[in-house]
Amino acid sequence: MEESRELLASSSVTHRMVTRIKGSKSSQLLDVISVEEPLEIRVVGSRDGQAFQKSLSITMRTPGRDMELAAGFLFTEGILQDCSQIMRIAPCGPVTGVHRLQNVIKIELVPEVQLDEQRLERHFYTTSSCGVCGKSSLEALSVAQCKPLPDTPPFEAAVIHELPTLMRSAQAVFEQTGGLHAAALLDSTGQLVDLQEDVGRHNAVDKLIGTRFLIDGLPLTDHLLFLSGRISFELVQKALMAGIPIVAAVGAPSSLAIDLAEAFNITLVGFVRDGRFNLYTGERRILP
Amino acid sequence: MEESRELLASSSVTHRMVTRIKGSKSSQLLDVISVEEPLEIRVVGSRDGQAFQKSLSITMRTPGRDMELAAGFLFTEGILQDCSQIMRIAPCGPVTGVHRLQNVIKIELVPEVQLDEQRLERHFYTTSSCGVCGKSSLEALSVAQCKPLPDTPPFEAAVIHELPTLMRSAQAVFEQTGGLHAAALLDSTGQLVDLQEDVGRHNAVDKLIGTRFLIDGLPLTDHLLFLSGRISFELVQKALMAGIPIVAAVGAPSSLAIDLAEAFNITLVGFVRDGRFNLYTGERRILP
Repeated sequence: MEESRELLASSSVTHRMVTRIKGSKSSQLLDVISVEEPLEIRVVGSRDGQAFQKSLSITMRTPGRDMELAAGFLFTEGILQDCSQIMRIAPCGPVTGVHRLQNVIKIELVPEVQLDEQRLERHFYTTSSCGVCGKSSLEALSVAQCKPLPDTPPFEAAVIHELPTLMRSAQAVFEQTGGLHAAALLDSTGQLVDLQEDVGRHNAVDKLIGTRFLIDGLPLTDHLLFLSGRISFELVQKALMAGIPIVAAVGAPSSLAIDLAEAFNITLVGFVRDGRFNLYTGERRILP
Repeated sequence: MEESRELLASSSVTHRMVTRIKGSKSSQLLDVISVEEPLEIRVVGSRDGQAFQKSLSITMRTPGRDMELAAGFLFTEGILQDCSQIMRIAPCGPVTGVHRLQNVIKIELVPEVQLDEQRLERHFYTTSSCGVCGKSSLEALSVAQCKPLPDTPPFEAAVIHELPTLMRSAQAVFEQTGGLHAAALLDSTGQLVDLQEDVGRHNAVDKLIGTRFLIDGLPLTDHLLFLSGRISFELVQKALMAGIPIVAAVGAPSSLAIDLAEAFNITLVGFVRDGRFNLYTGERRILP
């Protein structure tokens, strides 16, 4: 247990070479990146006297305390009430990724535990944007006819530096409550096309893309998506679906966001603030 | 369309009386709060020549551009490819909440669109923590044997003021990457019991609670949960399940987080930074 904890803890960060732009100067450095990997939570138990196994959730998580995460999820979602209901809890499935993670946790329940089928159905929870490992997610996307985005004209670094100011002046709600994520869409001239805010960052992006979808305005080639927070895998996946070649954010990207951007020729820009930013992928779309 | 847009846009914020603590001084003020409400996305179409209606997703969102959000979700999740596949899109269902929102969007597809059943199954996505409206979620929780938490001994304001410093010094990864959410658990003496970090804030909280669950250490009466980000409904719901009476955060709570905290006697503390904080509910658990 102790050993596996250490192994997992050590894989919560990874390292990537990034290009840091400060004003118009650029330098290379090795940056520390938060690892994001999907975790599948499976329950093995009995229902009406029959043994069954069910995948209850796939969540995008940072590796570490995976067994505790799985147990905590089952408890806070009201599926389990007491740790004595668990007979065994262990990682299983193939070892994947550069960190050689196991991205499936199987929880075996004691035979006396009768799970409420309706409750389980309500909890079955999965999204298209993640498979059981990063690799299979990327493969699933390729299969879904997603191709790498074409090369598109570059944006000037000065436009990137201006993004936080531009977003702040366009935000109606954020200044008032401090409680919303914002997503902004800019065209190739650096003009703001639309801005949406939401308590959920994926919703803000879906509102932006959905607005264009309904007026038959996709794909958003030559556009740039700017986010007020961090860049997760799911947000890059949404940009890819909409054909947006550049994703920039005030916060940091996750490891899987970078992998996805790299695989599909998307330019990823992080930590856009105070006259500097980091380039993680697709540098040629940004002119110094 | 224009009228309903305005109605929805105006309900993205609401107002609540809060107690602001600055050092040891307290004052009352009317604060602006981001609205969080569940939205159900339903698709009406045909499959193998048979008409069907399916609830595809319940997402916690800030009202506004709900139809665009629903369309964007279906597009970015790969279910729809073109806006010509949509025959009609409209809110439906009961009008709920103080803002009299309709929290269901129904998308009717043209008869020619054949949906891929397997893809739909993969996308069926719901969580226990949200019903179709805030009210029904709260009712669902009551039904699940959740009772208001008992009154517990108060924490001193000085302990709250110290939380950001305490968290920062305990964070192993955050300082390195800037890419993770953190959740900390403190006992009644203000001592740090545990800290977890994750790309997903709900995961960080599940890791904390799951760790205690596995050693039979629940409920966490007399404890305090401190979050590095904002406070959503889902996070308060997890605290409630674990019996944690105080939830504090660097960021703002959503409207539904406040409603839930109020209904279940949880103390909610927001904007804990720079020697001040806001009290939204359960003030008597904080001593000036």
